[in-house]
Amino acid sequence: MAKGILFVLSGPSGVGKGTVCSALREKLPDLVYSVSATTRNPRLGEENGVNYFFKTREQFTAMMEQDQLLEYAEYVGNYYGTPRDFVEQTLANGNDIFLEIEVQGALQVKEKFPEGVFIFLLPPSLDELNNRIRGRGTESQATIDHRMSVAVDEIGLMQHYDYAVVNDHIDCACERIESIMTAEHCKVRI
Amino acid sequence: MAKGILFVLSGPSGVGKGTVCSALREKLPDLVYSVSATTRNPRLGEENGVNYFFKTREQFTAMMEQDQLLEYAEYVGNYYGTPRDFVEQTLANGNDIFLEIEVQGALQVKEKFPEGVFIFLLPPSLDELNNRIRGRGTESQATIDHRMSVAVDEIGLMQHYDYAVVNDHIDCACERIESIMTAEHCKVRI
Repeated sequence: MAKGILFVLSGPSGVGKGTVCSALREKLPDLVYSVSATTRNPRLGEENGVNYFFKTREQFTAMMEQDQLLEYAEYVGNYYGTPRDFVEQTLANGNDIFLEIEVQGALQVKEKFPEGVFIFLLPPSLDELNNRIRGRGTESQATIDHRMSVAVDEIGLMQHYDYAVVNDHIDCACERIESIMTAEHCKVRI
Repeated sequence: MAKGILFVLSGPSGVGKGTVCSALREKLPDLVYSVSATTRNPRLGEENGVNYFFKTREQFTAMMEQDQLLEYAEYVGNYYGTPRDFVEQTLANGNDIFLEIEVQGALQVKEKFPEGVFIFLLPPSLDELNNRIRGRGTESQATIDHRMSVAVDEIGLMQHYDYAVVNDHIDCACERIESIMTAEHCKVRI
């Protein structure tokens, strides 16, 4: 049985990773999505192993020490990370797995799992990215400027990725990502 | 303007390269197809620059000597080859170009043009390839056996290609090839 492929979708904040990922989930309901581990408390309706793998701080720290995470970060006092086991088990079963993640996290994953396929989602233009960041309508000018400057830095990291997909329209971006998935399965691997 | 990409479709004789290529031409009428040069005489209705570039033996030999051919071969007393100029002009204009060719010819092209994308068309099984070769119904058992043995040797050359596409159904094979073309345009090239 052929092993599955890990596809990692990343890109600057505001580019629409989450929206594209939700659209893909609808189009490809059988695709397995990576489930993150976290130390934060479950919210109402969240299920362990579905929304997150909920861990105590001790459990999470043990996973870090035993190299059981492909990447992790601390955010507002809680840890979040990608469990290696879930990814490797899915691939060993012959299924692909899809991971949507921030740019820095993706680069951590690439270090530990270079055989993954890394896709960078690009805005059609920097003006359009500015519109999208601004469009949330909840942030001050200083915050918007800061987020734009971070986004521009992140776009500079695109060179570490295998593919760049412009998110001009969600459907077009999804089709390009599906094409990349099909093409990667046709690749001759010696 | 981004340069186009040279896509080379090859595979063992009997696998259905010509059929897949015709189906692609219908689906992608704007795609440019490589036009071969030949020393054979034009047949009724054939146009210079459309079906072939018709050349005298002296002109063809001069192209060989001046490295103006990406590949060439002699077949039943006539030369056939792929003019480099037509490929390079098309790419420089920002258009892709598609070349359907025998396995040995494709490997010659790869030597001269390694930046091309090389796609190997595979039969669903060797039994099915045997059926297809036999299906032409015009050849002796010895000829069929010989063609099968050549085909099996050619399949061994798949390792020099970038992609392998199974020709189980023409439409599926075409879709995979289109996905490869889309994905290649999304590749990050540093």
